[in-house]
Amino acid sequence: MENFNFYSPTEFVFGKDRENECGKYVKKFGGSKVLIHYGGSSAIKSGLIDRVKKSLDSEKIPYVELGGVKPNPRDVLVYEGIDLCKKENVDFILAVGGGSVIDSAKAIAVGVPYDGDFWDFYTYKAKIEKAIPVGTVLTIAAAGSEGSGDSVITKEDGMWKRGAGSEHMRPKFSVMNPMLTCTLPSYQTACGATDIMAHVFERYFTNTNEVEITDRLCEAVLITMVKETPRVIEDPNNYDARANIMWAGTVAHNGIVGVGRAQDWNSHGIEHELSGLYDCAHGAGLAVVMPSWMEFVMEHDVMRFAQMAERVFGVPMNFADPSDTARKGIKEFRKFLKSIGMPINFEELGAKKEDIPVLVEKFGLGENGKTGGFVSLSSKDVEKILNIAAEATI
Amino acid sequence: MENFNFYSPTEFVFGKDRENECGKYVKKFGGSKVLIHYGGSSAIKSGLIDRVKKSLDSEKIPYVELGGVKPNPRDVLVYEGIDLCKKENVDFILAVGGGSVIDSAKAIAVGVPYDGDFWDFYTYKAKIEKAIPVGTVLTIAAAGSEGSGDSVITKEDGMWKRGAGSEHMRPKFSVMNPMLTCTLPSYQTACGATDIMAHVFERYFTNTNEVEITDRLCEAVLITMVKETPRVIEDPNNYDARANIMWAGTVAHNGIVGVGRAQDWNSHGIEHELSGLYDCAHGAGLAVVMPSWMEFVMEHDVMRFAQMAERVFGVPMNFADPSDTARKGIKEFRKFLKSIGMPINFEELGAKKEDIPVLVEKFGLGENGKTGGFVSLSSKDVEKILNIAAEATI
Repeated sequence: MENFNFYSPTEFVFGKDRENECGKYVKKFGGSKVLIHYGGSSAIKSGLIDRVKKSLDSEKIPYVELGGVKPNPRDVLVYEGIDLCKKENVDFILAVGGGSVIDSAKAIAVGVPYDGDFWDFYTYKAKIEKAIPVGTVLTIAAAGSEGSGDSVITKEDGMWKRGAGSEHMRPKFSVMNPMLTCTLPSYQTACGATDIMAHVFERYFTNTNEVEITDRLCEAVLITMVKETPRVIEDPNNYDARANIMWAGTVAHNGIVGVGRAQDWNSHGIEHELSGLYDCAHGAGLAVVMPSWMEFVMEHDVMRFAQMAERVFGVPMNFADPSDTARKGIKEFRKFLKSIGMPINFEELGAKKEDIPVLVEKFGLGENGKTGGFVSLSSKDVEKILNIAAEATI
Repeated sequence: MENFNFYSPTEFVFGKDRENECGKYVKKFGGSKVLIHYGGSSAIKSGLIDRVKKSLDSEKIPYVELGGVKPNPRDVLVYEGIDLCKKENVDFILAVGGGSVIDSAKAIAVGVPYDGDFWDFYTYKAKIEKAIPVGTVLTIAAAGSEGSGDSVITKEDGMWKRGAGSEHMRPKFSVMNPMLTCTLPSYQTACGATDIMAHVFERYFTNTNEVEITDRLCEAVLITMVKETPRVIEDPNNYDARANIMWAGTVAHNGIVGVGRAQDWNSHGIEHELSGLYDCAHGAGLAVVMPSWMEFVMEHDVMRFAQMAERVFGVPMNFADPSDTARKGIKEFRKFLKSIGMPINFEELGAKKEDIPVLVEKFGLGENGKTGGFVSLSSKDVEKILNIAAEATI
């Protein structure tokens, strides 16, 4: 096991009706003027924004609003949010929505106290030194952004999708009411589930030996997702299944299942180019990329893939041919994704094989660059993975 | 799943040599004058206390010292610590040791800003409203006190062992270097492992339905302990096995595997009377009590015990007779405890059957009282469990 720090000081406020307490938590964490940040009209129509306002009113906390966050949240709205916060002396941002809204809120939060362009933090030109505090009311179980210090923003000019991370971005509190996820269309639910599983797999495939505890914790989340996701596709109002998925989504990405081990994250990197170019859902892009990445790197550590196959998908170990077990595990993963309504190849995603050179180019490794991770990839490797993804079938 | 809050704002600083950074973390969390609190002479002889002092020196943080914490830490030393902190204007307590030292440090921390007797907090006479901050340098993987808001103290006059809990008691940081646990005698190592498993079982046996994610997380910790504990008994210097156990110990008790579900804790309650009366190690007492408690309550939810038997101990499910699977699981647990050197009955623990009436009396339910938990227990039930424990064999 490698040395690590684990610090997850977000207060999770979980369960039915808990959004009615968000005013109390804004107060607890020092907010005196709030920006309510949200996405489309569903948060308004459902009455959620009104309940949030009522909760702030009851604590006599004033607020301003900024809606309109799109999936793959854009830099344009972040600039608008920063200006609004400065003008209105906002000292706390309350993100009401899913990962996109929370990521946008985090970008605004680091932009407010910074004199330069917030995009500097997403292009490694500046290091995040401070931020105004963020709280969240989560409405989609997916990104894990409610418990992480990460944010991904897309620069509209050129559709560059880039991430930043800092402890300063970690939410002070996150209200998680599984009921709020019951109205999600099943496609979005499945995208979220795929994202959650991908967050675990990015940590699970490691070159660090002897990490039994985090291996087992990873498998715990994966097994849960395999059990609970079909139940919410079948019955969107299954509260307990929604609750299990929602907590699994936080555990998958707040760090606890990945400490002390090298991680991968190449599938996320490759997917970002897909959703950057086509504006598709991140989870859908991952459903296409990740099993293809698995096929490409499998020979690097067949036994780890066999372990995943047996422990997560119940594939019996083929002791005479572990590669067979590993391949079957990847196939089971793809079958699972298909069964919950995810695309598994370019055509189903709405991507085009002829764009692969553009995707590889935007990935930015150039002629001699390499990624890090479980298997270090060159531009040629990324191209091969995208070619597998383009034609994948079950 | 039930509603819950999960808030674990301790920074875990994990890995080799990390104790050399404790000065940095005391500073980060606002300490300007430290009490170094520790147990016996081993922490001095090993050079650990010197390394801690050097780290404080390098940050120019002054300190005073108080050693002498015993297993089942006593109120007498807590009073001494409170007086010392007040006299020396200490504003940060650094506990260097295992659960006993940390629990003692927490008691001092709540006692310093309180005008009354700190024991009020352990007898429900007062509610903890504040504490001076505590940091830890952990030397035993067991109690989970490094990541919890709990503390257990024994009142020497009468040997009353009582617990208190508060978010104010949760350590600001915990340095966890698995190397420091390599010098532990195997008996203490095994006691720690038993305590870790017991912390999970207290949460695992629940009447809350539909808690797949926390069930699976519990099993992840238990499976890890079953794999890694025999390895450190065999080879005390196995760093990776020590590291897996140490992180498992924190995960077992910082709350994450138990949120959203009713819990039990009756085995801990009964054990406290054993270690209170005989001053035996808490883990050793649990090894005697917990499997006996399992036998007594098993019929309340046979399928949950069968699940534990299959998933944790690999007992094949007997579909014609799930009770058989459940019983075999409990037997496997007892065999496991025996194999790592733990006592499994009164004689091996050094307890006496004729003391059972005294133990039941001290447990304090009286004639009509009942505990809560997975199965609510009367004095008569506690007596029966102790009788099973007295005579237990494999």
